[in-house]
Amino acid sequence: MTCELISVGTELLLGNILNTNAQYISQKLADLGVNCYLQTTVGDNPDRLEEAVRRALARADVVILTGGLGPTCDDLTKETVSAALGKKLVLDEDSLAHIRRRFAKMGREMTPNNVKQAEFPEGCAILPNPHGTAPGCIIEHDGKAAILLPGPPNEMEPMFDASVMPYLEKRSGTKLYSRMVRIFGKGESSVEYELRDLMDGTNPTVAPYALLGEVKLRVTARCRSEREGEKLVAPVIAEIRRRLGAVVYSDEGRELHEVCAELLLGHKKTLAVAESCTGGMLASRLVSVPGSSRWFLEGCVTYANDAKARRLGVSTDTLASCGAVSGQTALEMARGIRRTSGADVGLAITGIAGPDGGTPEKPVGLVYIALASGEVEQVTELRFTGGRERIRNSACLNALDMLRRSF
Amino acid sequence: MTCELISVGTELLLGNILNTNAQYISQKLADLGVNCYLQTTVGDNPDRLEEAVRRALARADVVILTGGLGPTCDDLTKETVSAALGKKLVLDEDSLAHIRRRFAKMGREMTPNNVKQAEFPEGCAILPNPHGTAPGCIIEHDGKAAILLPGPPNEMEPMFDASVMPYLEKRSGTKLYSRMVRIFGKGESSVEYELRDLMDGTNPTVAPYALLGEVKLRVTARCRSEREGEKLVAPVIAEIRRRLGAVVYSDEGRELHEVCAELLLGHKKTLAVAESCTGGMLASRLVSVPGSSRWFLEGCVTYANDAKARRLGVSTDTLASCGAVSGQTALEMARGIRRTSGADVGLAITGIAGPDGGTPEKPVGLVYIALASGEVEQVTELRFTGGRERIRNSACLNALDMLRRSF
Repeated sequence: MTCELISVGTELLLGNILNTNAQYISQKLADLGVNCYLQTTVGDNPDRLEEAVRRALARADVVILTGGLGPTCDDLTKETVSAALGKKLVLDEDSLAHIRRRFAKMGREMTPNNVKQAEFPEGCAILPNPHGTAPGCIIEHDGKAAILLPGPPNEMEPMFDASVMPYLEKRSGTKLYSRMVRIFGKGESSVEYELRDLMDGTNPTVAPYALLGEVKLRVTARCRSEREGEKLVAPVIAEIRRRLGAVVYSDEGRELHEVCAELLLGHKKTLAVAESCTGGMLASRLVSVPGSSRWFLEGCVTYANDAKARRLGVSTDTLASCGAVSGQTALEMARGIRRTSGADVGLAITGIAGPDGGTPEKPVGLVYIALASGEVEQVTELRFTGGRERIRNSACLNALDMLRRSF
Repeated sequence: MTCELISVGTELLLGNILNTNAQYISQKLADLGVNCYLQTTVGDNPDRLEEAVRRALARADVVILTGGLGPTCDDLTKETVSAALGKKLVLDEDSLAHIRRRFAKMGREMTPNNVKQAEFPEGCAILPNPHGTAPGCIIEHDGKAAILLPGPPNEMEPMFDASVMPYLEKRSGTKLYSRMVRIFGKGESSVEYELRDLMDGTNPTVAPYALLGEVKLRVTARCRSEREGEKLVAPVIAEIRRRLGAVVYSDEGRELHEVCAELLLGHKKTLAVAESCTGGMLASRLVSVPGSSRWFLEGCVTYANDAKARRLGVSTDTLASCGAVSGQTALEMARGIRRTSGADVGLAITGIAGPDGGTPEKPVGLVYIALASGEVEQVTELRFTGGRERIRNSACLNALDMLRRSF
């Protein structure tokens, strides 16, 4: 079964609004195993809309349109789709009563143009809209279907879930099951190179997505049940783990800081962090995990040298001889935050995020990360490229990765 | 002049990512007065992509494609567009050297599949990519143009601004001049209501964009020169400032934390911050400003009560009688971070970000913000709705706004 989306609205073509409807519907179709090969955005223009509808219905089994169901003369999706399918529009008394009730409830006068929201192509199934005035509809014709939905996401999304999903499930009879593998410490092209034989498009499929400093792999199986899907996906994930090893940090789509949170919680360890160039980004990412108060004790953003000495006990000798950006300072920061906070694990970052402050020996992008935990002390030197935010983000991800690998 | 967009990527069709590129480019085209009647999203499939390219080139003067320029075998935009236009792909040595340098700098091995990112349709103009490995290109053919851009927004947006805008300006004969007015402390509908007569679509145009907790207004003039543009835009911005007053915090598109940085620098004041529920987000935002070491001394993420007492000297009596989330604790945190850091200004946040930890008297979303500067001490109680990240973000923005208004 194939499906196409048509997003209707000049405000989309002008960039006034972001097309979140397309993503919302695409995700649901993918989950259902319905193939969606093409999506189109057109303005409130009857000729171009009718051409888009005709072409889409020629290619796909189901065409989903969002937008253009409102009361204004710009709203002409129903009129255009009806014309393309040779159907007459007829008034639906129940829908008209629903619209009248909504206006009465809001204490607003119902202007005559609102009546057209209660007119539908003959023989269609009307989809109720509990969150707005314009109902949607499903029109079947020659074995194909056109599904018309309102444009505002707060009306479209509940209507899609309540009325469109059951229709599509019944029509398609298949299911999609997928899991997300997350990788840190290996680039997209290198991951693809090592897994190229697994990406041959058979069932299950393996698709790579590059994030800032990370790679995601979506492993997706077409199946009749979740159980069958997991049976298809599990050996592929096992093979990915076997080939890539420790760079795989989650096969359930978790973020790196969420994985760290789970490890700390599971091992009943507490954490405190000391940051210089990342300036609170590491702490903020850790604290974004709900319930972080159970394992996160505190963070020190020791930006000035004086703060490194006063808060963490970094020795002024070290700061003078090795410099604030050095392995020794990172180590003393990790030890210091651990000792002063009483946490089990101390994690520290110091570096030069730029754009200024670099020297030939210590260029912008030079970062030291250190960890102190139990008997173990670790420090690593890294060199990043890119702008200030990219360097700070890379430093955080590497610190989280060091923490993860310490368990 | 007409333009069409083609967004390439199976990850868009699967709903894995939101198509922000289409909105970004649409806004720029609308500002330039370039008509965009149709936008298409296709997957990484050569036949369907080639058909989409052929159709778009038959209708529009310029076709802009985003995505599919990467190193993997899925990435086939250049190959497909070249085939549709009957052009050969040739290796560009400069681009190859750039890609090699990026890999060397990252200390990563360059796998052989990366070479294809340096291959381009013969005779095209290559668009440099300072933020990634895949350059873009402009291919002219029979009076039409195809513009190929990378998919990741952090690479596409700067390339569009640096290389595509000048090309489109030259081709369309118009220039654009715009300034961004930024507002904190007033909702989008209220801003629109007060400025509705300025938003009538004449030159210059005024377009509102709602952000999380903020409003942006873009004032854009079509003009022949920057000087003429500024002459058109300046009186409109003056009128906006007159009507909205102190909620306008920048008319040059600066972020709230950037405005705070300028104020601190201008007044030669230093800052230190203490955070509980925001967990380093405030410090991180301040430190994101290049050169922040000149005015930012340090931050304490005093998440546990013990850290509030030990690091900042918040009295255990206050913590016991008023609680960690109280105006008195916020005030003692602001005083404490100021005193212990030696900064001129101390800024503090404490609150309940949820989802757990709320009570009937102190619900999730309750936040206290305090500032200590010179003789002035301020504390404010706020109640936010929404999820954990939204509450934390609102708390940061309000703290920054308090800091800005204290000057």
